[in-house]
Amino acid sequence: MVVLRTVPAARKWVQAARSAGHRLGLVPTMGALHEGHRSLFVEARRRCDRVVASIFVNPLQFGPGEDFDRYPRSFNLDCKIAKEEGIDAIFAPSASEMISEPPEINVSPWRMGELLCGVSRPGHFTGVATVVAKLFNILQPNTAFFGQKDAQQAVILSRMVQDLNFPITMVVCPTIREQDGLAISSRNKYLSPQQRERATVLYKALHHGEQLILAGILKPDRIEAEMHNVIKAAKGVELDYAEVVDSLSLRKVKKIEGEVLLAGAVRLGKTRLIDNLIVRLAKKRQKV
Amino acid sequence: MVVLRTVPAARKWVQAARSAGHRLGLVPTMGALHEGHRSLFVEARRRCDRVVASIFVNPLQFGPGEDFDRYPRSFNLDCKIAKEEGIDAIFAPSASEMISEPPEINVSPWRMGELLCGVSRPGHFTGVATVVAKLFNILQPNTAFFGQKDAQQAVILSRMVQDLNFPITMVVCPTIREQDGLAISSRNKYLSPQQRERATVLYKALHHGEQLILAGILKPDRIEAEMHNVIKAAKGVELDYAEVVDSLSLRKVKKIEGEVLLAGAVRLGKTRLIDNLIVRLAKKRQKV
Repeated sequence: MVVLRTVPAARKWVQAARSAGHRLGLVPTMGALHEGHRSLFVEARRRCDRVVASIFVNPLQFGPGEDFDRYPRSFNLDCKIAKEEGIDAIFAPSASEMISEPPEINVSPWRMGELLCGVSRPGHFTGVATVVAKLFNILQPNTAFFGQKDAQQAVILSRMVQDLNFPITMVVCPTIREQDGLAISSRNKYLSPQQRERATVLYKALHHGEQLILAGILKPDRIEAEMHNVIKAAKGVELDYAEVVDSLSLRKVKKIEGEVLLAGAVRLGKTRLIDNLIVRLAKKRQKV
Repeated sequence: MVVLRTVPAARKWVQAARSAGHRLGLVPTMGALHEGHRSLFVEARRRCDRVVASIFVNPLQFGPGEDFDRYPRSFNLDCKIAKEEGIDAIFAPSASEMISEPPEINVSPWRMGELLCGVSRPGHFTGVATVVAKLFNILQPNTAFFGQKDAQQAVILSRMVQDLNFPITMVVCPTIREQDGLAISSRNKYLSPQQRERATVLYKALHHGEQLILAGILKPDRIEAEMHNVIKAAKGVELDYAEVVDSLSLRKVKKIEGEVLLAGAVRLGKTRLIDNLIVRLAKKRQKV
């Protein structure tokens, strides 16, 4: 496994891989690798001849007062995990290599970036989309792999590929969870044992919403109120949002049909956690 | 010369050209080809093994009430000109092929798009950058060719390539002018004979500004006032703007030094024309 530190080094490696006719997979990460990332690596290995993982804690996607400085960094362990999973190259540029000066030209999701997590994280998804566009242009993968855990990010980046005609196939892999349902996240490391126990309430709320929908309750307001109640009843957990939206457009729906996204965020102390579930209603059920 | 009408057809042609090891040049145009475009084609042929010209009147870069509907379209003549200049492929998608639905994710120049022409054309440069990013991703050129005539566009797109790491070399070719100095533009066709005569005032104003700078007048306000006066003295010509800015950042400068851009726009009836000059001051002169 080779570690690429500069854009020219990355371009050279990519050029060699593509010249050899290899299908190239990219798994963009911010490091602090966990089981969720491992599942992306496995899928990328399965579908591609060569796989590059990027490790870059992207300053553009953190707002003032967010956790950029304390975001977990574990480069040596990350390399060990990537090697175990058969990753061929790590692209780990410094901040100044990747962003020599603040970008004047950004990739902006506008509306889609202002909803859900965008309400409490203004500019976050512009920072994500801009840096992923940079990674796409530097590493030129055939296929890129993202986790469903970051649902809004996955929708926005899939739409970016479509709207800007990137010659890239997007693969979104299922969320990996702990035994008790908690979605695995690098930020789970921030939680105290007590917070860790309480954190499962987000998944419980989403799961409760899903169960109600599958039981035939198709009013989004009702589902959202129920999810809110579950979260509000939990000690030490602050509701950020819990919403029912269209899974592709992220727009509010008037009636639940087809495929919807239940997405939520909570805070435990300084730690903000997100999770989501996609709920698909069969046509048969819709007609009932 | 092949005419490519769809994104898949374009990708296939590009793939074949790149697999054969050809260096690919792209000249993005809105058609209505003229001597300015010819000069881009010549430069592209000189530098690249294969050249594709795109012809697409981009609806995203026209505002409400602008000339999208009446913008000159001359596809057969354009093909003749492209063929004469040795262009290998024309990419001429329909509007629906290129933009199947309004993009949710845009490439946004923010500040750089709000200056100069951006004041009277809000959203214009977001439309330009978004569609050029699409063209870059569809046609994947090694080198892209633009005219200095559209100075702000050239600066923004060069910055886009830098900020988003497109693996593309930008070449900006000199403005081609009529004998009397008028910059050649597809929109010159809109002018009545009388307006055509009056239209040279924009170049005259910029040239006057340049002469004053080279004579040692280094206060931007003074240069701008002089250029304004030239334009305001002309009959039937309305000043949009005439400014002195840094040639890379497009920021206002306090003192003229190094390289500045003199850029202006005027209206003659419904027709809006732009032009610009880059003025480089030698270090020797700066020290005088």
